[in-house]
Amino acid sequence: MANTEKEPVRVLPGERIDDLQRNHLRIIQNPDKFCFGMDAVLLTGFAAGAGSDEKRGSQFRLSPWEGAKVLDLGTGTGIIPILLSAKTNASHFTGLEIQHESADMAERSVRMNGLEDRISIREGDIRQAETYFGAESFDAVTSNPPYMAGGRALTNPDSPMAIARHEICCTLSDVVSSASKLLRSGGRFYMVHRPERMAEIFENLRKYRLEPKRMQLVYPYVDREANMVLFECVKGGKPGLCTEKPIIVYEKPGVYRREIYDIYGY
Amino acid sequence: MANTEKEPVRVLPGERIDDLQRNHLRIIQNPDKFCFGMDAVLLTGFAAGAGSDEKRGSQFRLSPWEGAKVLDLGTGTGIIPILLSAKTNASHFTGLEIQHESADMAERSVRMNGLEDRISIREGDIRQAETYFGAESFDAVTSNPPYMAGGRALTNPDSPMAIARHEICCTLSDVVSSASKLLRSGGRFYMVHRPERMAEIFENLRKYRLEPKRMQLVYPYVDREANMVLFECVKGGKPGLCTEKPIIVYEKPGVYRREIYDIYGY
Repeated sequence: MANTEKEPVRVLPGERIDDLQRNHLRIIQNPDKFCFGMDAVLLTGFAAGAGSDEKRGSQFRLSPWEGAKVLDLGTGTGIIPILLSAKTNASHFTGLEIQHESADMAERSVRMNGLEDRISIREGDIRQAETYFGAESFDAVTSNPPYMAGGRALTNPDSPMAIARHEICCTLSDVVSSASKLLRSGGRFYMVHRPERMAEIFENLRKYRLEPKRMQLVYPYVDREANMVLFECVKGGKPGLCTEKPIIVYEKPGVYRREIYDIYGY
Repeated sequence: MANTEKEPVRVLPGERIDDLQRNHLRIIQNPDKFCFGMDAVLLTGFAAGAGSDEKRGSQFRLSPWEGAKVLDLGTGTGIIPILLSAKTNASHFTGLEIQHESADMAERSVRMNGLEDRISIREGDIRQAETYFGAESFDAVTSNPPYMAGGRALTNPDSPMAIARHEICCTLSDVVSSASKLLRSGGRFYMVHRPERMAEIFENLRKYRLEPKRMQLVYPYVDREANMVLFECVKGGKPGLCTEKPIIVYEKPGVYRREIYDIYGY
């Protein structure tokens, strides 16, 4: 249902509206505060199964989303639930965001896209998420959490950018333990993070019984080290990890490889 | 020193001598029992720094081997110490092997190459290695251990091939804990394994204080899932992992990519 008959969505000074190149979806962002990056887009492609091998096929990849209740931890401007609403047939998404300004932007983007029936934005703290939603109440949890450990030593730790990038309001351990509490047994957790912290990521995933089942590394060029890692974990799953084909972003400087255009939907 | 003046090295029925394409090195193998694979070759290239980024350069990569005492756990026919003797300036290698026949072949290959001064082969059990060599007695430990968990249910668990491939005589945990005991603080551990077991590998590395510092994934083709993973860990090291550029083996069926020929030394 489009928004045409309701009150128009406000766009505040400094904000802009970006076209997401998929199903005419749009998103409100403020480039002075924080804009979504390729990580969020790749995570939705990975989660929706875009990166899976053919032999795994659509039966395996797409069916888990059928009718699923999904929670996005630290949703920012809502990019992950908005994109996943188009890429999956999940029934409902909740985006949890601690920063009032981002949560407000996300909520307006949801209305602008007429997605109020499928996406709810909730302002709140990841560490309290269980008290808001109840234990084991989701089929899938997604997160593009702050990557950098610490952050209290920053000059400006209260800025929206700092909170989105540094572990100021939540740590890796907070995100993983919260995801585990909120997922039903057999539910899936999707996260994008930095390969530098992989040992700590594996440690936390196992500690909170989120068994890594699929992993994909993102390399900017074929001859460079990886700068992102994508995970699919199953709560209480059996050990056994598939490391999918590499995602290699650039063919040469300024030119994406074909698969990146496919994931972006151009 | 070549072997020409000493007694000739025996080659037993069923065995053959293979040229290693590097420094005229050769190795005795029995194709009916077990031959080394690409994993051992890639591990030596990775360990010697062949896969490192240019910015890390030779200073960082090659200097740690200067004068090092190195132990190879489960050396089989001795392929890893033999190749590393050519690729590094380590002062001495010890190859530990539980199977008499393999240890004997390894020992003959060492003599055939005139490497008795740099490589010793010791028949024995990884789980007892600390009693043979003493704690913290090595600067680096390498291993290409059996990949498959379990193995007691096999039809033929005592065959050389089964022992080399399945965790019959030692588990992943045995290998990692042994490596940790035998390494000095700050010493390096190099291992090749299967990505399927990555969560368990990380768990064991952290449990035994071998911090993963460098990792490299090996993909048979650019669009296939990874089938090997290489690790460099530092005993007592600080967290922080570099996932190096992907190794992609084949350009197309039957044709290696350039980097593979480089690692093999063709």
